[in-house]
Amino acid sequence: MLEDKNPARTSLENLGEFGLIKHLTQHFELAQPSSIKGIGDDAAILDFKDKKTVVSTDLLVEGVHFDLSYMPLKHLGYKSVIVNLSDIYAMNAQATQITVSLAVSNRFPLEALEEFYAGVAQACKMYKVDLIGGDTTSSTKGMLISVTALGVVDEKDISYRTGAKPNDLLVVTGDLGGAYLGLQVLEREKEVFKVNPNSQPDLEPYSYIVERQLKPEARKDIVELLQKLEVRPTAMIDISDGLSSEILHLCDQSQVGCNLFEDKIPLDPTVISTAEEFNMDSTMIALGGGEEYELLFTIDQADFPKIKGNPNLTVIGHMTSKGEGAHLVTRANTKIELTAQGWNSFGE
Amino acid sequence: MLEDKNPARTSLENLGEFGLIKHLTQHFELAQPSSIKGIGDDAAILDFKDKKTVVSTDLLVEGVHFDLSYMPLKHLGYKSVIVNLSDIYAMNAQATQITVSLAVSNRFPLEALEEFYAGVAQACKMYKVDLIGGDTTSSTKGMLISVTALGVVDEKDISYRTGAKPNDLLVVTGDLGGAYLGLQVLEREKEVFKVNPNSQPDLEPYSYIVERQLKPEARKDIVELLQKLEVRPTAMIDISDGLSSEILHLCDQSQVGCNLFEDKIPLDPTVISTAEEFNMDSTMIALGGGEEYELLFTIDQADFPKIKGNPNLTVIGHMTSKGEGAHLVTRANTKIELTAQGWNSFGE
Repeated sequence: MLEDKNPARTSLENLGEFGLIKHLTQHFELAQPSSIKGIGDDAAILDFKDKKTVVSTDLLVEGVHFDLSYMPLKHLGYKSVIVNLSDIYAMNAQATQITVSLAVSNRFPLEALEEFYAGVAQACKMYKVDLIGGDTTSSTKGMLISVTALGVVDEKDISYRTGAKPNDLLVVTGDLGGAYLGLQVLEREKEVFKVNPNSQPDLEPYSYIVERQLKPEARKDIVELLQKLEVRPTAMIDISDGLSSEILHLCDQSQVGCNLFEDKIPLDPTVISTAEEFNMDSTMIALGGGEEYELLFTIDQADFPKIKGNPNLTVIGHMTSKGEGAHLVTRANTKIELTAQGWNSFGE
Repeated sequence: MLEDKNPARTSLENLGEFGLIKHLTQHFELAQPSSIKGIGDDAAILDFKDKKTVVSTDLLVEGVHFDLSYMPLKHLGYKSVIVNLSDIYAMNAQATQITVSLAVSNRFPLEALEEFYAGVAQACKMYKVDLIGGDTTSSTKGMLISVTALGVVDEKDISYRTGAKPNDLLVVTGDLGGAYLGLQVLEREKEVFKVNPNSQPDLEPYSYIVERQLKPEARKDIVELLQKLEVRPTAMIDISDGLSSEILHLCDQSQVGCNLFEDKIPLDPTVISTAEEFNMDSTMIALGGGEEYELLFTIDQADFPKIKGNPNLTVIGHMTSKGEGAHLVTRANTKIELTAQGWNSFGE
């Protein structure tokens, strides 16, 4: 859709690889004291002093992870960064730098890549991270994005997935299901548009969930909040593949079980009403819907008074011994075994 | 060519994303003392203590950077790592960790990815780097590889591209042109094979240059050698896009000029004979041929006695003032302006 239909646009071939990287990254400035040397040499140089270095990487593929027919390129640039920062925050760390690599068909005009990098720049500014490297190359088809995020953490603050203990409380940030339902709304509008290209979609009633899909945020604020509250999660993970799948990761890696209470799962009113409209069960959506980028963590019960009543944090269950397994306790008070509803990109 | 023609092979769909990553990385062990936590959490944790962190990233696209019809997947895995390590060594740093992300069409059988990771494992072992992260996902077409390499360096040892001064000597490691000519030989054999699939290519006379293309090495040994010789390059870069292009980068970023002497450019006898066979000029090949992964650096003239006679190092010229420009001094003693012959992946 964004490939070059307009011959007046600037072709990538004229710039070449070096010119392109230079052009796209010329307005990025280094703001982190740990960024010694950014783009422009064989490698970047960073100085994390006595802190530990945190590294995470992700690959996003057009037609698999995003659809340019409803994802504006600026939002895509923003979201590509967010997805990676979320992994750094999930270690209870601060994100400090990113590298962004892009493979695009040479039929994308330069202006499209500028849009993408404008989104990257906005995320860098919002989250105070520096763009310190990357690669830009051609692809034989479509667009592919690879982001690596770096961060720092004090050793005592690290939250692995492995530290949850029986009786720890299970806590989630924000609310769930919005990103998945936002995608359903966008997919529906795309089908309507195919039939009638003159239709004007009214997305206003869905603005919250569409934004959760197109412009998600990562929970940098939660890492800062936990620091302030003096709470160190015993285990933490971010919700990229659905609540259910992430709970099972925590249980598996910490060797514990879990009781998750259906009536505690935080849902926005838009999620509830849109789920009804689509004839879907909102609990199933919260359990299986990916791309939320909320944080899921466990805390010692002794820390409960510190987080009680905080509007950003909801206790949704507690951990048990491994032998008890992982269950959803429904509103009707029956126990159902939790199964991964994680998104599998290799499935059909 | 390696897509799934044999239905007995293991389909990626059956494993799913988590199973796939786990399966492919299960035999990788952490060997670097700086690797605290590798694959298996939201992010990896590293401890570089009082050293500086070095980061570099690259994207390799099927049909643009490699051709699976003559590049065995194990070699591709190896080379993907080498390409990135070379950038770390070009900062005069030690490489310590890598992340490897892979996007593949789900028609690649599991066994193909195992081959790829076997090559990654071999490179990790050879170069003593740890695989600490990555992502594996599906693509709509072909294969795409993203590697990020991390390393450490003492502040006093860092060699940027910016430090060359007039009168510094220009030094190159190894010999040049082999990787490019190796590719020409492979392309020729591919054409022969298309016409006559029963032909048995005799690559024996070309084994050195074919290996330079299919299984290049990065010059970790040179960083160690320079340390031993107590030589700190005033500027350094690796040769990924051709000698000429890299010299111009050094000149541009260090604000100097250069005289490069044609008769000093190190060429292997196989390069000379194969260039003749292809009716090509071996100097032009050395100037323009990419993917050598040799190091190009400048040193203060006072350091010359320390490197003199070392078989790994060849002085090929010297830097001048910026106003004098960058020139090739030919065997006939005429001066020709150097132009970038760098490889442009967006070109036709």
